[in-house]
Amino acid sequence: MGKGGESHEENMAAWLVGINTLRIQPFKLPPLGPHDVKVRMKAVGICGSDVHFLKTLRLADFIVKEPMVIGHECAGIIEEVGSEVKNLVPGDRVALEPGISCWRCNPCKEGRYNLCDEMKFFATPPVHGSLARQVVHPADLCFKLPDNLSLEEGAMCEPLSVAVHACRRADIGPETNVLIMGAGPIGLVTILAARAFGAPRIVIVDVDDHRLSVAKDLGADGVVKVSTNMQDIPEEIERISKAMGAAVHVSFDCAGFNKTMSTALTATRAGGRVCLVGLGHNEMTVPLTPAAAREVDIIGIFRYKNTWPLCIELLRSGKINVKPLITHRFGFSQEEVEEAFETSARGGNAIKVMFNL
Amino acid sequence: MGKGGESHEENMAAWLVGINTLRIQPFKLPPLGPHDVKVRMKAVGICGSDVHFLKTLRLADFIVKEPMVIGHECAGIIEEVGSEVKNLVPGDRVALEPGISCWRCNPCKEGRYNLCDEMKFFATPPVHGSLARQVVHPADLCFKLPDNLSLEEGAMCEPLSVAVHACRRADIGPETNVLIMGAGPIGLVTILAARAFGAPRIVIVDVDDHRLSVAKDLGADGVVKVSTNMQDIPEEIERISKAMGAAVHVSFDCAGFNKTMSTALTATRAGGRVCLVGLGHNEMTVPLTPAAAREVDIIGIFRYKNTWPLCIELLRSGKINVKPLITHRFGFSQEEVEEAFETSARGGNAIKVMFNL
Amino acid sequence: MGKGGESHEENMAAWLVGINTLRIQPFKLPPLGPHDVKVRMKAVGICGSDVHFLKTLRLADFIVKEPMVIGHECAGIIEEVGSEVKNLVPGDRVALEPGISCWRCNPCKEGRYNLCDEMKFFATPPVHGSLARQVVHPADLCFKLPDNLSLEEGAMCEPLSVAVHACRRADIGPETNVLIMGAGPIGLVTILAARAFGAPRIVIVDVDDHRLSVAKDLGADGVVKVSTNMQDIPEEIERISKAMGAAVHVSFDCAGFNKTMSTALTATRAGGRVCLVGLGHNEMTVPLTPAAAREVDIIGIFRYKNTWPLCIELLRSGKINVKPLITHRFGFSQEEVEEAFETSARGGNAIKVMFNL
Amino acid sequence: MGKGGESHEENMAAWLVGINTLRIQPFKLPPLGPHDVKVRMKAVGICGSDVHFLKTLRLADFIVKEPMVIGHECAGIIEEVGSEVKNLVPGDRVALEPGISCWRCNPCKEGRYNLCDEMKFFATPPVHGSLARQVVHPADLCFKLPDNLSLEEGAMCEPLSVAVHACRRADIGPETNVLIMGAGPIGLVTILAARAFGAPRIVIVDVDDHRLSVAKDLGADGVVKVSTNMQDIPEEIERISKAMGAAVHVSFDCAGFNKTMSTALTATRAGGRVCLVGLGHNEMTVPLTPAAAREVDIIGIFRYKNTWPLCIELLRSGKINVKPLITHRFGFSQEEVEEAFETSARGGNAIKVMFNL
Repeated sequence: MGKGGESHEENMAAWLVGINTLRIQPFKLPPLGPHDVKVRMKAVGICGSDVHFLKTLRLADFIVKEPMVIGHECAGIIEEVGSEVKNLVPGDRVALEPGISCWRCNPCKEGRYNLCDEMKFFATPPVHGSLARQVVHPADLCFKLPDNLSLEEGAMCEPLSVAVHACRRADIGPETNVLIMGAGPIGLVTILAARAFGAPRIVIVDVDDHRLSVAKDLGADGVVKVSTNMQDIPEEIERISKAMGAAVHVSFDCAGFNKTMSTALTATRAGGRVCLVGLGHNEMTVPLTPAAAREVDIIGIFRYKNTWPLCIELLRSGKINVKPLITHRFGFSQEEVEEAFETSARGGNAIKVMFNL
Repeated sequence: MGKGGESHEENMAAWLVGINTLRIQPFKLPPLGPHDVKVRMKAVGICGSDVHFLKTLRLADFIVKEPMVIGHECAGIIEEVGSEVKNLVPGDRVALEPGISCWRCNPCKEGRYNLCDEMKFFATPPVHGSLARQVVHPADLCFKLPDNLSLEEGAMCEPLSVAVHACRRADIGPETNVLIMGAGPIGLVTILAARAFGAPRIVIVDVDDHRLSVAKDLGADGVVKVSTNMQDIPEEIERISKAMGAAVHVSFDCAGFNKTMSTALTATRAGGRVCLVGLGHNEMTVPLTPAAAREVDIIGIFRYKNTWPLCIELLRSGKINVKPLITHRFGFSQEEVEEAFETSARGGNAIKVMFNL
Repeated sequence: MGKGGESHEENMAAWLVGINTLRIQPFKLPPLGPHDVKVRMKAVGICGSDVHFLKTLRLADFIVKEPMVIGHECAGIIEEVGSEVKNLVPGDRVALEPGISCWRCNPCKEGRYNLCDEMKFFATPPVHGSLARQVVHPADLCFKLPDNLSLEEGAMCEPLSVAVHACRRADIGPETNVLIMGAGPIGLVTILAARAFGAPRIVIVDVDDHRLSVAKDLGADGVVKVSTNMQDIPEEIERISKAMGAAVHVSFDCAGFNKTMSTALTATRAGGRVCLVGLGHNEMTVPLTPAAAREVDIIGIFRYKNTWPLCIELLRSGKINVKPLITHRFGFSQEEVEEAFETSARGGNAIKVMFNL
Repeated sequence: MGKGGESHEENMAAWLVGINTLRIQPFKLPPLGPHDVKVRMKAVGICGSDVHFLKTLRLADFIVKEPMVIGHECAGIIEEVGSEVKNLVPGDRVALEPGISCWRCNPCKEGRYNLCDEMKFFATPPVHGSLARQVVHPADLCFKLPDNLSLEEGAMCEPLSVAVHACRRADIGPETNVLIMGAGPIGLVTILAARAFGAPRIVIVDVDDHRLSVAKDLGADGVVKVSTNMQDIPEEIERISKAMGAAVHVSFDCAGFNKTMSTALTATRAGGRVCLVGLGHNEMTVPLTPAAAREVDIIGIFRYKNTWPLCIELLRSGKINVKPLITHRFGFSQEEVEEAFETSARGGNAIKVMFNL
């Protein structure tokens, strides 16, 4: 093992082989390139998109046509490094950024590699994911963890990255009051990220009391319980406004429904921004014109870029603590993998379900 | 006249006194403050919003409750200057920026005075407009015209300002290919402004052949005739793409309908911007999520700020020629005012209808 | 008093009447305009520029030609409000922004009112300052203090504003490692502001051990003692680099000497920014070309704009604590005023010297 | 040749083998990688940095320690493409971007690949240049020329890129009046680029009448002849101001001397930008503090990024015409290479000296 000499049979992975069907099977690793590393996976989280693929074999335009290894929120330990790798050595604990971009297209060269058309991203078909004993990955996408961070915290850099990217694009700082629509996992990490970016006031909205209480514990200044009824929007905006006690400069819609987006567009002050993070409805019916006529801009989000170093810094310094989000842990047997995905799919008290491999 | 000493009876203005009812009546001027000027109006254009007020007595949240002088696209000659006015003298030919902001609120201080809540804007109730023999206005909102510009061109700075503000907010430059939805007056000035900002390729879309031919004459590189049928969007985007021969970086929706906005959101490349200029539908049903997931941002527009000096410079240097847009001219009798508004409302070949006072 | 009816004799102020000569004399207030308030001054701090004017009767291009009331860092209690003032009432405790801009020039309209050529700024000749029992000031430049802030903290909004404006212009955030050259009052508030803007690592440099120990207490992550010898720059940069333990993204030169600027330009990573806050030397000899060839930009700072609401929010929320900076307090007798300025001029342990009126 | 099967002996290149010594010798090509192309060079321009290397074997920190092929402004015809190359075929005419960045470091990932520490750049030691019969280069750095552009115009994309990058960083647009210090080749292409970015007024300054007359021919609105005497600055700024007839928003210092930079810093209006493009003096003595106190920022420039597509578009559309800049042409014999470099070094009427291979 020390020389990276395992046989292929040893590397087992969780394959998505059909609707609601995961199977632990051997996963043959690609050869180790000069700039690659081989990583022994230690912590892999389950994301909503993993569950969505498991249930439907698709997400947006991506369709699982062939069996595919699942998983993309991950951290592990370096086992072997390619001949040109200089800043990592076996034994290093690393968090993995899941997407490999081409660096030849315009978006890549212009600093927006997350928009690369050729992106190879863990567990986005037809690319295999990282819920496996071992993976091979480019060294520059493996970020060394400082001693005071656990591998689980390393895996949490992935969902945190979504929030960090959203906070960057929405330009959150010490004078940005933030409204968050939806207290699911992404809404919750958005509280943490917005706070770390300096947001002075954060109010979060959800339909669920438990989620709101978790949000409060994570540092939301105000929580507002809402209905799913469009008619309630005006009254709910009044309560949001009261909970904020000031203007809303930026709203993050982490749910993505007609109602959440309509609320966000109306609640945000003239000249503010609404950042659409959650992808619920495809087509939306929203009061776009009145918002545009107040120069409320709508900012789109796709994954993230250059976020791992910042996430690690925020976790290292203690500005962000993601541990309370990890509510369930499972091992890597066939049985446990199935149970873990069921737990994540059920929702309820589960926020982040984590595998310890 | 040289001393600004007309009696109030002399100053006649076009009052909106009821639905479809304009009447030329005396308009008493406010006293001339130390930083104000008195302007003899010479050229006033009719805007779509004027027509909308005339037909319905309202626009968005603004309602005409009392008789109101109409008109806000204007230029004239300085007749009298306040005691503190230093950069204007009687006889100067000036274009007027119509909105007086408070300079005490946050938007004003932060450089976004167009979002001032206390804005007093010509012909936005309850503030009187400028279709009058004379108006009193702050000197710093009256911009001297160079000798080579006519007063009509001065009045055209107002609609041009909308396009200039949109081009600034959408960050148009020599590498921004531009798609414009709608070839009405605002779509047409957007061609001119985008070109002046350096846009290398401009394609414009409309349902009307005549408008498209005007657009072509004004410099559009490509024109695409479309239907009002949502089903045609995919095929129309193919034709847009072909007409552009390159990626669409920024789209301006100068119509503001479900179909135009849906087309714009889908046709714009990942990482691009859609700027919503036209205010058609209030609530819109559009594919917001797929656009946001490609980081296509939506930029809102409300009027303009700091645009007159640039408009005058663009006209002076010949980079923009607005004269072809002035299709009809009228004098300032009761009859002609009525006919002018009818002409503007009818549309047809009329682009900009102008009063010569 | 409740009606603002004091006679002019009552309002005493500290007049700068000659080099090193301050005299408490009556100060006649201007009439109260409709948008003005009359403020009873309660806390006024001494700034380095006040001391400079006292010693030389000049600063940069500003020359004191007539006796002038000194002072501009201040807070007080509203005594009377003009007829149009809506958001303040007598008894309100307020911090005062010292500069009144014209709102008619280009910089004002473009959101950079700090660059207004017509600016009337407390104690910048020929405009009188605020070290007086009472002043009249525009209501929109008087910012209400929340209950948990003292008037002295209110007065500290002025020096803090310099740092906040610098942090905004230098775009400080959670991924910006900050180097500060000079641990004088402005260097020290820059630590506080940079931290509030999210700066993860802050290293500060000075020639004085005591100042560095104060800096450490205020939250600097590293302090580096340096010499005034140009030859030491390379070795000192090594120590700075070690203290930072990471790249320097932004440097603030709060001293403004050849050596501090040269160090900052060289120590900052490619693509970073050096913000010149301190105004020491006029002409500088610095390695400008190598810095520019690494795209290290140099950002200039002049006073501030729109900073009071943010400063108050940062103090209210406890993100910034300026109290440790107030080292000396004096009353408002002729004797105490003289002693206070001597204390401030001497430096030593004095950071901020404050008058309690 | 059609199969790319030349022997190594065939590929001759111009080697810099010692001070003032160039020799045409065989140059063995590296193997063609899957994403590489082999290009038959057709047009190569001489840059000031080439001349500098020839005369001194060094430039800034780069030292020529081993014989090195010179040249980096180039265009040619594709001879062979690697197995993965999809958008180029043999026979395509291409302009070459000379720098290969690593795409693994922070600057590369953050969209500033020109600041990559691992950059391999034509004719920057120890990397070989492109004044050769053939070179192997990454396909994504070879940009197809449209039919209406010559290969010489393709080679001109390199110097034009410097100006384009400067205009982007300095944010040139239709409201930016531009002052250019220095009418050498870079100053001249900066005229062209600034105009294409929309600059309404461009004034250029030089010590040489001929250069100023070329500048005028290329479209400068005003030219100002200056001395090399620092004492003349105030008077020269008056003449610059008169030639501009308006405020200077952005200055480009394309010379890089104390005098040019001092003039630029003083002539630029408050809130403007000075972009340091030319690299003359290393250490500079300039009035930095007064400029910073007017918030005049200094923007650094290092090479360029993502400029080829824009340069080609500007040339294709006719917005920029670089042909008048090509003043001398030479073939690729030992004799002509020597004469070409002498011509370029002599200056005089030579602007751009071009090899036709």
